Amino acid sequence: MFGVTILGNNSAIPAFDRHPTAQVVTLNDQLFLFDCGEGTQMQFSHYKIRRSRINHIFISHLHGDHYFGLMGLLTSYGLLSRQTDLHLYGPALLKPIIDLQLQAASTTLPYQLHFHPIEKEGMLVDDKKFTVECFSTRHRIECWGFIVREKKKPRRINKAEIVKYDIPAVYYERLQEGADYINKDGSVVKNDSVTLATTPSKSYAFAADTIYDESLAEKVKGVSLLYHETTYLKDLHERAALRFHSTTVEAAAIALKAGVGNLLIGHFSSKYELLDEFLDEARSVFPNTQLALEGSTYTI
Amino acid sequence: MFGVTILGNNSAIPAFDRHPTAQVVTLNDQLFLFDCGEGTQMQFSHYKIRRSRINHIFISHLHGDHYFGLMGLLTSYGLLSRQTDLHLYGPALLKPIIDLQLQAASTTLPYQLHFHPIEKEGMLVDDKKFTVECFSTRHRIECWGFIVREKKKPRRINKAEIVKYDIPAVYYERLQEGADYINKDGSVVKNDSVTLATTPSKSYAFAADTIYDESLAEKVKGVSLLYHETTYLKDLHERAALRFHSTTVEAAAIALKAGVGNLLIGHFSSKYELLDEFLDEARSVFPNTQLALEGSTYTI
Repeated sequence: MFGVTILGNNSAIPAFDRHPTAQVVTLNDQLFLFDCGEGTQMQFSHYKIRRSRINHIFISHLHGDHYFGLMGLLTSYGLLSRQTDLHLYGPALLKPIIDLQLQAASTTLPYQLHFHPIEKEGMLVDDKKFTVECFSTRHRIECWGFIVREKKKPRRINKAEIVKYDIPAVYYERLQEGADYINKDGSVVKNDSVTLATTPSKSYAFAADTIYDESLAEKVKGVSLLYHETTYLKDLHERAALRFHSTTVEAAAIALKAGVGNLLIGHFSSKYELLDEFLDEARSVFPNTQLALEGSTYTI
Repeated sequence: MFGVTILGNNSAIPAFDRHPTAQVVTLNDQLFLFDCGEGTQMQFSHYKIRRSRINHIFISHLHGDHYFGLMGLLTSYGLLSRQTDLHLYGPALLKPIIDLQLQAASTTLPYQLHFHPIEKEGMLVDDKKFTVECFSTRHRIECWGFIVREKKKPRRINKAEIVKYDIPAVYYERLQEGADYINKDGSVVKNDSVTLATTPSKSYAFAADTIYDESLAEKVKGVSLLYHETTYLKDLHERAALRFHSTTVEAAAIALKAGVGNLLIGHFSSKYELLDEFLDEARSVFPNTQLALEGSTYTI
């Protein structure tokens, strides 16, 4: 299972029962939280998210609609006697903001909170089965997007074929990694004659808040699913640019240029009650587009 | 109209769709906000609170469930282009917490935010028609309760009676304030023979978070309505004391000792889904008790 569940799809002012940004990525038994707008812990309850499985939280930037729910979540974990380490990634200023509020409450968290200030583009987490990288986006303040990638999966041994060759079992792991086998006489058993491909590794890019920026396409190139904000419909592209946000067709243009599999759009301005036009406009440029709807999970 | 609307009645961990503490007091055309737990701005929308009428916000203490919704509210006011001054009262440390987060977001509020650090018990607001005082409560950290009092209303001129006396109209205002009228010949027209009493002035005390503390009764003596926390049922009085909270019968004992008109109880622990027992236990000591239910307004 690799999917993203939307907990908040609205821009800064909550409206029409839409909440500020928060997304939970599920990768098998791991949960990652991307941004944590006000009310995220209530959304966890509402949508039955298993919050105790979250060990990594990523905060894109320090506009309130992307992190004002973080302190509530961190302190609730404490009240719930969490013991497991928690890793938090975000702009450096997030640390003193957290520390000051813990200090004001005379609170010590009962678990280890490891804060990793984001300083440059690149790898944030390099796990056995996945990686998380960050990239900068162009917004009014320092802002980061994130990409979760499954690691390349081992090829499967083709049991029906491998019996035809005299390959020692200790060599199987290298076959699964894609190596050919060379016999003592120098003849070669090509890898794909004794192994089978597995499903390709998938990837999810969360591009946070951003103005239309063509260079973003390179950063998210070829991901399976791209989340790109669409604060406004296309007629308001000037307002979008002024506020360092994007429109529907701009997000779709990035998806097209980046050659992604699917596009997910959200961060809708509170000036819009209905969202149908967002979908229509984006699909006119990039057909594989879906609206990020709260409570919905999108398979990656 | 003088009433209090409950927006959050739960203790620290949100549960059963109950929210952290926030209460809106309506006094004619004025709204006051007491505490501002996470999600308060969403509760405003949900219960159609006219947020633009709030010019005074009071924060009892810096445990997150009493103020983690404040930054969201302050910045949303900004995004909604609020122009009216806003007065904020709370522990001194609240100021750097707000400033640091505004700075991190590179945000300047478009309205004047006047922060009034609470330093001692006494008068916070002295308006023509009402006052707001604060008093300290005994909690794990610095904590303040608040009392809103209508000012004594002017007596009404008794038109049927006053015609019998030769009292100049310029003296009417003093009659309304309760003065007698003295004729030139030294004879006295007693005030109550030419004026009528108005409804007595009402008062509301919000006693925030507190351990059972008999001295509180003196501080909230005789108010029309007292809100007192009841985090636990009476069997958990030891846990309550350990955590500087109160039980049902403790809150009711304070109400009884203080001779208040009515008691409102809330700040229920997330260990309780049903609240009936809270009401039963409190009423066994102080019959005029009501549960603070979200979305309900209690006339003062």
